[in-house]
Amino acid sequence: MDRTERTERTPKQDRSRATRQRLLEAAVSCLAEHGWAGSTVSVVAERAGVSRGAAQHHFPTREDLFTAAVEYVAEERSTALRALFPQGATGDRRAVVTALVDLYTGPLFRAALHLWVAASNEDQLRPRVTELEAHVGRETHRIAVDLLGADESTPGVRETVQGLLDMSRGLGLANLLTNDTARRERVVAQWATLLDQTLG
Amino acid sequence: MDRTERTERTPKQDRSRATRQRLLEAAVSCLAEHGWAGSTVSVVAERAGVSRGAAQHHFPTREDLFTAAVEYVAEERSTALRALFPQGATGDRRAVVTALVDLYTGPLFRAALHLWVAASNEDQLRPRVTELEAHVGRETHRIAVDLLGADESTPGVRETVQGLLDMSRGLGLANLLTNDTARRERVVAQWATLLDQTLG
Repeated sequence: MDRTERTERTPKQDRSRATRQRLLEAAVSCLAEHGWAGSTVSVVAERAGVSRGAAQHHFPTREDLFTAAVEYVAEERSTALRALFPQGATGDRRAVVTALVDLYTGPLFRAALHLWVAASNEDQLRPRVTELEAHVGRETHRIAVDLLGADESTPGVRETVQGLLDMSRGLGLANLLTNDTARRERVVAQWATLLDQTLG
Repeated sequence: MDRTERTERTPKQDRSRATRQRLLEAAVSCLAEHGWAGSTVSVVAERAGVSRGAAQHHFPTREDLFTAAVEYVAEERSTALRALFPQGATGDRRAVVTALVDLYTGPLFRAALHLWVAASNEDQLRPRVTELEAHVGRETHRIAVDLLGADESTPGVRETVQGLLDMSRGLGLANLLTNDTARRERVVAQWATLLDQTLG
């Protein structure tokens, strides 16, 4: 946002924006810790220190709140990932692979996982989450191609990058119940080498 | 089981075994369709056409029933995977990679995923599921190494196979909300080629 925009915002708008952000962050940690069954608008409002009415003003339904929350944090993480490599395509592919895999461990992946699993059984949630997932997936793929300096016009390169992101998702899942860090680092080191050879 | 063992089994034992198996299969489909929150011993007993008392005789707790169910089906699938390649190590690595990835799509993976996610929030379930997961993971890794004819004494080979199984898990997750078959086949084809080059 540039300076002109900021001076045009009223204190009330700023407060509203801050409230929305607190709700979204509380929703993600709630989903990561308690799962879908334990995550209601009331629980999140209390956690965020916001009244139930104010929460419902921002997010009329539970589905609105949780899909917005996962999208918000996914965008924050994409921004953080790009900020790690401000020059874009880098020679250090191992560092890029490590940073990409890191997107899939920690609370955002955990929250997203709860949302996916809930959506697989809840008809109201499924279309929203499927659309969100497609959006986040495309964006992550675009960033990965860019940072790896991958040339998708070469046959097989697109699928190589997709497979890397599938592997990252699987590594995130492997980290759900136990701390899988040591094993994950060895797998990432090996596949970063293979990827480097393949992408040339 | 050999013929001698079979003749020593009484009809009562056979019935008990059949009841147990019906309960385990009903538990897996229940978990895949309704998730942990919708899966109780009563619901499974009804689905299997077994009285609640008989179900509780076999499985005193919900945790007993569902961890046994996921383990049972995982073993069935390992057996089926080995049966696909009765000669063991095969020249056709792409066929092996496809068969391995297939283990992670469909109702078993879906049921296991519900169990993992529930276990991440339920203290009673977590140690059982973590132990089960370690057991199934080791067994799958052993089968994969064997069928791929991979030599784990060569540096990097162990991590290459692990990464393949992580990718398979990620591909299973990508198939949860939408039918991802077409994309998955392209990724598997490409990664099977990479694997073939790496394993030599």
